Amino acid sequence: MKHAPFADRSPGSIALVGAGPGARDLLTLRAVARLAAADVVFYDRLVDPEVLSLAPQAEHVFVGKEVGAHSWPQDRINAVIVAAALQGRRVVRLKSGDPSIFGRACEELDAARSVGIAVEIVPGITAASAAAAALGRPLTERGATDRLVIATATCKPGDPDPELAALLTPGTTLALYMAMHRLPLLVAQMLAAGHDPALAVEVVGSASTSREAVLRCTLANLVARVAEAVLGNPAILLIRHPKAAAVATRRAIALVV
Amino acid sequence: MKHAPFADRSPGSIALVGAGPGARDLLTLRAVARLAAADVVFYDRLVDPEVLSLAPQAEHVFVGKEVGAHSWPQDRINAVIVAAALQGRRVVRLKSGDPSIFGRACEELDAARSVGIAVEIVPGITAASAAAAALGRPLTERGATDRLVIATATCKPGDPDPELAALLTPGTTLALYMAMHRLPLLVAQMLAAGHDPALAVEVVGSASTSREAVLRCTLANLVARVAEAVLGNPAILLIRHPKAAAVATRRAIALVV
Repeated sequence: MKHAPFADRSPGSIALVGAGPGARDLLTLRAVARLAAADVVFYDRLVDPEVLSLAPQAEHVFVGKEVGAHSWPQDRINAVIVAAALQGRRVVRLKSGDPSIFGRACEELDAARSVGIAVEIVPGITAASAAAAALGRPLTERGATDRLVIATATCKPGDPDPELAALLTPGTTLALYMAMHRLPLLVAQMLAAGHDPALAVEVVGSASTSREAVLRCTLANLVARVAEAVLGNPAILLIRHPKAAAVATRRAIALVV
Repeated sequence: MKHAPFADRSPGSIALVGAGPGARDLLTLRAVARLAAADVVFYDRLVDPEVLSLAPQAEHVFVGKEVGAHSWPQDRINAVIVAAALQGRRVVRLKSGDPSIFGRACEELDAARSVGIAVEIVPGITAASAAAAALGRPLTERGATDRLVIATATCKPGDPDPELAALLTPGTTLALYMAMHRLPLLVAQMLAAGHDPALAVEVVGSASTSREAVLRCTLANLVARVAEAVLGNPAILLIRHPKAAAVATRRAIALVV
């Protein structure tokens, strides 16, 4: 793809559009409008084919990971979306969840801006919100948990493992993305940090989709229960550390001491 | 409002529906569908009147805070939504943002379940996602910030002030909700914890609405700049502590020591 040679051609644009957690009806009206106006849609493996049906007029280009194959490198995705916009096309880059949360949006925003292409973010429902809806239980519970930590167990190659246990302070709900392949490490970290093996853990696989699965277990049996349920990514793992539990623990310690 | 006396009356239902950050087109298709099917919509002050126009067939009941008046107590809101559902009505309880994040959803879910009324959560776009879209900058940036902490500066009366500075660990983006009236305390906490007065802070007021305002400043001039801009709640305050900055600080300390 080359830059269109027509000087009077109207410039293209790029919208990084949040496709939400999977269910078609969890797209926003703005996402639907961008899809309906798109000339080309670049999507990846977590986006439901039903969502693409909202852009029947557009070319659909898969830029994700095929089973058993390598993913498209991010540089290549940046290059193809920018090239399409430089041809004057309205580009939708469809991303599962919210492009602003673990969406590699920076790289695509920078690539677009570096060549003067207008680019916007259309926010989407992130998976933690969909997991809460699936559980019928909110992410914050007044007086118990008044902050939400959204973290990933997968980080940039070469970076040290994230210290996930340190994030679970009193008053926190921890929502972990892409953690299914690192559960033994997570459990070991949590137990080493002094968390109770009986601490409740909720896992929601493929929230909002037809494959949605909800699992309620504990730190102690998390690994076994997830294996039994054959739950893989994408799934959201929720661990809560209510303030009241922290107070109770401190009191128990004070009594023992 | 009393329980309808007809034994054969079909049971009502309650949907806690996320209205998103304000823009009508940031509602999900599911939220639009629930509004279109509602018999009654209970809404509060942060919900744009334009959103209510999606439920022209329904009764609209304001349960928020009038200027200069007290808010409806949560118990009273619980009572009226449950009473409406017990009359066999399809109730939409419209909440700004995502009902699962600082939405007092627990109380309403419990009230509904305690009398056997079916209740669901329809997730919405939370304000932090809309703030990121307004800034054109995501909430996580790979290699720099790989977790998002969503916290509020306002907590249950009687609870101690949240220790906000402790949340801003390396690799974190902190998104603070309802913090506009507590900025001097926040800045004092951050500086006392050793954060650089030149640390960048982004503030987005009324993200996604016609009153949207974006402010880029530092810890040092945050209070003055917010006062100048006459920014009040609802606004989102974003502070980032990139991993690289932490490494640079440790290296600088090592050189000095």
